[in-house]
This record gives sequence, structure tokens and C-alpha cells, in this order.
Amino acid sequence: MGRYELEYPKDATNTVKRHGERGVYALEKIHGLINSTQLLHISFNPPDSPFPVTLPMIGQMGSFDRPSASLGDPLDLYIHGYVSGRLFNIGRAAGDAGMPVCVAASHVDGLVLALSAFNHSYNYRSAVLFGHATLVTDDDEKMYAMELITDSVVPQRWKNTRLPPTGAELQSTSLLKIKISSGSAKFRDGGVIDDRHDLQNDNALNTVWTGTVPIYSTMGEPIPSDHNRVELPPYAAEFFDDFRNGNKEYAVAAAVKKPEPDEP
Amino acid sequence: MGRYELEYPKDATNTVKRHGERGVYALEKIHGLINSTQLLHISFNPPDSPFPVTLPMIGQMGSFDRPSASLGDPLDLYIHGYVSGRLFNIGRAAGDAGMPVCVAASHVDGLVLALSAFNHSYNYRSAVLFGHATLVTDDDEKMYAMELITDSVVPQRWKNTRLPPTGAELQSTSLLKIKISSGSAKFRDGGVIDDRHDLQNDNALNTVWTGTVPIYSTMGEPIPSDHNRVELPPYAAEFFDDFRNGNKEYAVAAAVKKPEPDEP
Repeated sequence: MGRYELEYPKDATNTVKRHGERGVYALEKIHGLINSTQLLHISFNPPDSPFPVTLPMIGQMGSFDRPSASLGDPLDLYIHGYVSGRLFNIGRAAGDAGMPVCVAASHVDGLVLALSAFNHSYNYRSAVLFGHATLVTDDDEKMYAMELITDSVVPQRWKNTRLPPTGAELQSTSLLKIKISSGSAKFRDGGVIDDRHDLQNDNALNTVWTGTVPIYSTMGEPIPSDHNRVELPPYAAEFFDDFRNGNKEYAVAAAVKKPEPDEP
Repeated sequence: MGRYELEYPKDATNTVKRHGERGVYALEKIHGLINSTQLLHISFNPPDSPFPVTLPMIGQMGSFDRPSASLGDPLDLYIHGYVSGRLFNIGRAAGDAGMPVCVAASHVDGLVLALSAFNHSYNYRSAVLFGHATLVTDDDEKMYAMELITDSVVPQRWKNTRLPPTGAELQSTSLLKIKISSGSAKFRDGGVIDDRHDLQNDNALNTVWTGTVPIYSTMGEPIPSDHNRVELPPYAAEFFDDFRNGNKEYAVAAAVKKPEPDEP
């Protein structure tokens, strides 16, 4: 429990300008969103293309130097992938300086349907991080990061898989560590916000349905593999329930919240 | 119905190398994935930063010149946003040449939990498009794109909102049109693929639960706004049902499908 909440400083790259009141800079909220997002979008500039390239990747934030660090502390982002993948080849070539990347995590939490199409919106949470990616070369750090990433898929999964990793597994897997330079997030929740002139427009009010609709990610029934011999263990069953309930509760709370009219 | 299916040509930027057998180049599949994704991730390079910037945006593909075009035809991607947003300022400054962008759309369809942590995966569908973004200046094209984008939130929504747009609404909204240079997609579905040596490992088989878990986005009960006076109309109720059922059916089918062992 710290006495204050760490924030990423605002600069030209990370400042939320449009709807600035929705901007979030607290490390804890940003890191929490990154770590609860199943697919992150990593963007980088290949040397041989005019276009940035964006890839969906699995990643997780943590601190190898201080594994007990909490979400509100400075953390690194670890991304894993196949050893000869383009992202990893470019990261390797960048050496110690690292490759500049942007990481985005977004959740859609609901539809916001207003009288005017121009006041339609989604409830959503999105975060971006900017940083430099370097290849992880230390074997202990690779193992730390593999466990971190595996446990992001299902908590406690790493220690409940076949261990230790084989030499071939370790050799074919590369890990990138992204040292974070800055970041921000933007959240929108709450109900419909209509313009005053529309709220006085009887024809619109009598014909257009307005309201919110919660949207959330959920899980179906687990399907054992043909070679499975084991009952679904509690660590997995509990996580699947938490996933279903937590996502639904957040989206419904966002949808029923009273709107807070904000700057245009 | 054409005699052949159009594909984006493979080049250095868009070719799927890792698990090449999962690569998809057909316009219809790529455009379909983009148009069914509620938040796209748009990446661009601001002139004043070493980092690419990735923003979650609402967008939709269509053809203003040939509105009857189907998903398998060459299409443009339209993105809308606030007139003074950074993406739109840079797009405006890029003029007719356009700003190089990458657009990514990804869905998580399920967990794939194997004996070894290194054979874990997600079932997923992801697409990327590369292209140049220019500002839409033609008023008719702006209206076409606004209707296209609004109807991507809920089909038929545009004509069921308060119309026509006010002058202020049109002035404060900018639209970018992205002319596509290339694109590709990558799909993973099916069950667990474990290595032969793990399938002969009784200790692993007797202790590790393996299988798939469907993951899909769903909608909760619609919540009318305080000023709503209208019953939920059929066009909306039917879409919400289609959304719930279609996403669930896809994820469950992906999870129960027999795995097809593939190149390492």
C-alpha cells in the first residue's frame, strides 16, 4: 500500500486529447488492463516497409528483478514467440538499444445507442504503452517470463503442465522484454448522452430506441482432448468462473451507470 | 457469384511465415473479419515520435463507387473520428499521397491447453491490412461512410436514428478512407496438438488436464436510457440474438474440431 499512485508523465506521445477527462495515467490501471487482455496488439516498423506492422501477441507485465512487484509499480512487458519470427529477428538486430514498439490493449464493454448517430459510442477500456523491445538472453529470466505468460492464459497453469521444458522447447522460443517509456489509457462507461436539442425533439424520442447493451467475453464448457485422462482441476474451473462472472459484472455495471455529460 | 476468389498477392509485408498453412489471403475472409470486429487497431507513424502509435477505432469496409460490391471485391476501409484528432490531422497533412497505416482485427475464439506449456495456444482469427489513408472531402462520400459505420454497430441503425445530421455534426466529424495495398489473415482452430514424446509420458497424461475452452463475445440484456420511450425494435433485437448465437457457435465449433497436426 503506497502513499501515492504512480502515473506515467504526460507528453506529446501519450496524452489523451479528445475527451481528456477520460484519460488515465495510473500505472496500476494501465498495467491491469494489459495483463487482463488475452491478445495484445504490438506495432513496430520493419526496416524494409513504409508501413508499421501490427501483430496480435500474448504478453504479460512483470518484474524479473523484483518478482513481488505489484501492478502499480514500474514493470516490463514480456512477449513470447517463435525464434525466427520477424518481430523477434528485428528485435534481435536492434541490440541493446531496443526496437521502438507500441502495445495496445482494448476491451469493448457495450453499445451506447443515442438518438443521433453522431452520439453513438461504445463503452470500452483501452490502453497503450510505448517502449523499446530487447531480446531476453538470460536463461533464468526466460523461465520467469515463460511462467508469467503461461499463467496469464490460466493462473497456476505453468506448474500444472509437463515440466521441465525440453531443450528444443527453450531453443525454439524467443522472448522480448519491452522497457516502458510511457503509456496511457482511455475508459468510457455509463449511459447515453444526447444533445439538448434532440431531447426536445418529440419525433426522435417517439421513434428511436436509446439505451446501452452490455458486451463481454465469456467462456463455454471446457472440452477435454481425446488423450485427456484428468478431471478438470479446481484452479482451472475457478478461473473460468471468475472470467465469466468478472467480465459480465464489469460490462453490466458500465451499462447501467448514469451518464456523466462531458466536454464536447 | 464469381468464377474465382480474389486474393491479396503475397509479398514481404503480408506473407504469413510462421505456420504458413494458417495464412489466409482471400479478400472475402479478410474483409469479413474486419467488418465483424467492433474495435480495429489502426497504427501510424507520427512525424514527431520514434514510436508507431496504435489507436482502437471503429471502421468498416465498403465501396462508395460501387455500393453493391460484396466482401470478396476490392474495398476501401472507412474510419471516423473527431475532426481535430491526431490521426486525422496527420492524415490531412499527408494530402493525396496518404498516410501509411496498418489495420489489425483480432478475435480470441478459445483456450488450447496442452500437456506442455509450449504447446498451449489460443484459437483465434486475426487480419491485417496495409494501406494509405486520405481524408474524405466529398459530402456524399462522407454520408455514405457514416451510414456504413453506424450500421456496423447495429445493422439498419442509421435510418432508425434522428436524421438528417446537423451541420455541427457533419463539421465536427472527419472520415479517413484507407486504400488497401495488401493484407492477410491467420486463423487457428481445432483441438490440442501435443508432441509424440508427451503423448507417451504417463506421468504427464495422468496429471495434466488437456482440452479446449470456447471463448466468445456476447451481449447482455439491453438497458433503456432514462429518456427512452420506445419498445426495443426487431432490427435491434434480431441483431443482438445473431451476435450472441453466431459468436458462440463459431467458438464452440473451433473448440470441438479435430486438431490437424501441422508444420512445427
